Amino acid sequence: MTAPFSTIDGFRDLLGAMPSVNQTAVNGAAERNGQLTKPPGALGRLEDLASWYAGWRGNPRPELTAPQVIIFAGNHGVCARGVSAFPAEVTHQMVANFEHGGAAINQLSKAFGASMSVVPLDLDTPTADFTQAPAMTDDELIAALAAGWTSVDPSADLLVVGEMGIGNTTAAAAISAAIYGGDASSWTGRGTGVDDDGLARKTEAVELALERHADLLDDPLAVLGAMGGRELAAMAGAIAAARHHSIPVILDGFICTASAAVLEAVQKGALDHCVAGHVSAENAHIRLLVQLDKEPLLKLGLRLGEGSGAALAIGILKGAVACHSGMSTFAEAGVSDG
Amino acid sequence: MTAPFSTIDGFRDLLGAMPSVNQTAVNGAAERNGQLTKPPGALGRLEDLASWYAGWRGNPRPELTAPQVIIFAGNHGVCARGVSAFPAEVTHQMVANFEHGGAAINQLSKAFGASMSVVPLDLDTPTADFTQAPAMTDDELIAALAAGWTSVDPSADLLVVGEMGIGNTTAAAAISAAIYGGDASSWTGRGTGVDDDGLARKTEAVELALERHADLLDDPLAVLGAMGGRELAAMAGAIAAARHHSIPVILDGFICTASAAVLEAVQKGALDHCVAGHVSAENAHIRLLVQLDKEPLLKLGLRLGEGSGAALAIGILKGAVACHSGMSTFAEAGVSDG
Repeated sequence: MTAPFSTIDGFRDLLGAMPSVNQTAVNGAAERNGQLTKPPGALGRLEDLASWYAGWRGNPRPELTAPQVIIFAGNHGVCARGVSAFPAEVTHQMVANFEHGGAAINQLSKAFGASMSVVPLDLDTPTADFTQAPAMTDDELIAALAAGWTSVDPSADLLVVGEMGIGNTTAAAAISAAIYGGDASSWTGRGTGVDDDGLARKTEAVELALERHADLLDDPLAVLGAMGGRELAAMAGAIAAARHHSIPVILDGFICTASAAVLEAVQKGALDHCVAGHVSAENAHIRLLVQLDKEPLLKLGLRLGEGSGAALAIGILKGAVACHSGMSTFAEAGVSDG
Repeated sequence: MTAPFSTIDGFRDLLGAMPSVNQTAVNGAAERNGQLTKPPGALGRLEDLASWYAGWRGNPRPELTAPQVIIFAGNHGVCARGVSAFPAEVTHQMVANFEHGGAAINQLSKAFGASMSVVPLDLDTPTADFTQAPAMTDDELIAALAAGWTSVDPSADLLVVGEMGIGNTTAAAAISAAIYGGDASSWTGRGTGVDDDGLARKTEAVELALERHADLLDDPLAVLGAMGGRELAAMAGAIAAARHHSIPVILDGFICTASAAVLEAVQKGALDHCVAGHVSAENAHIRLLVQLDKEPLLKLGLRLGEGSGAALAIGILKGAVACHSGMSTFAEAGVSDG
């Protein structure tokens, strides 16, 4: 499969021509929901989730049987500035761990019946240090977006994208600050557990990036290229591909959400097919979710990345869809409806 | 199987002699958790859950493969006072719906691989209207506690108890007010969707119950008998049996939690093997959870009962245990630990 774009403008144009939700399916789901054997509204947010899922699947009584989890991995030139608690080689080591089934996301994918794949992106060629130069060239950005796009299985019925990349909370903070403004320090946090000095270096790196790339701040895809990383661009490409294929998406943590925010900044509504799986312990994540008007499904203090929070939320969505599509109606069950 | 008690005092004595958590397993789980391929603490609450589960299962690296869901159903004399939006025959109809697989809890049990059974408790003989007399005689209370106790499968590795009983939020409100004090109105809510007049009748019923049974308020098991229902007593019996068999429990909503609170009021620590699955939309639920110092796993606005919120949380606990027991250690995976 090849991606249906070969330039950044081509990708931008695609975002402007994405499918909308199927309103007939939404209406059909609402009608069905009103007939199910429960008091109106008693399943709370599960009812909204089922309706949203039905709408994007174009089916008023959908199933959820083929979730796909994809983990993108990339390395970051900005790591040389000491912004992470872990050395850069951990990205490579963790890719091997994913491939051998030993990471958290392997266990969660298995627990919720999701297929899982890992896509390492030129790990031996870190992006440029974005305090000094754009992280990626246009060709590198296009390649990463395309790698994300083509990783999505069109027959999946749910997508979770996650990431692994030592240093990538710094990239996510820079992108967030570029898109939404605010002090660099308001978007940086401890990530995997950096100490005070590391946090100061991280904040400084974001400040330097904002200064260096000040002329790009109005162009979200240029921001993604200049301050992102390959795994962030790939997540954006995959989320866009999911929309193209009418596959709903569960967003993961701060880095995934920052990548997604680029799409919304390009095209309002670009994330309507996405739900926030959780809010992470990284403080900036809730700020992003507020900007995107996404209420997280879970709040359990996770801050691991690698799609783990979103994968955990697969269970919630599966439960919502199972209730919606599997329950009997009052008429079928012979239950009085009050 | 018969219950190991035949009197209320016998049940009380059992509560005072329940097994404690296995500290060796807790310590072993903590040691293992520190070696897993993730930054320390990065799985947030999942790490605490796994440790709690390991401790109660007595295994530092447990599995969770056999969750059991039991729904107890009962009818309530207080229904004659117009405290519910649904007629009392719905209890019977919903039991049939459970048996035929059409309710929300059927779908959720299936989605999370739980066995599920329904235990109707003398539906044709509602409890007495507790504004006029004790809801249950001592013999009825003992029978309901025993029905709950003996419904628990000793080979289960997780228990969810739920309920169905038109009118039972009124019973739960009365029990909560009796145990914790406070105005009747602070413990009553709209349940399945009662209107303003119904809510006023419900609050009045609780007030009348508190007056009528004022001499029992210091004895939580007497309160359960006087203001509870068979399904509430059965849930309490089942939760106690789970402790006896070292089976962790996920608590459901307001009614389940009120039943559980009786045990904690009898014996401090009686609910240490329980985690709160969710907080429901019924306002009094969060008040109970605060009293019990239980932080709910989910907050999704459910207010259905029938074990639905707890069943949904099975997925969270399964994810926690899968990560804890399935992940590789840094040494196994050859990953640098920072």
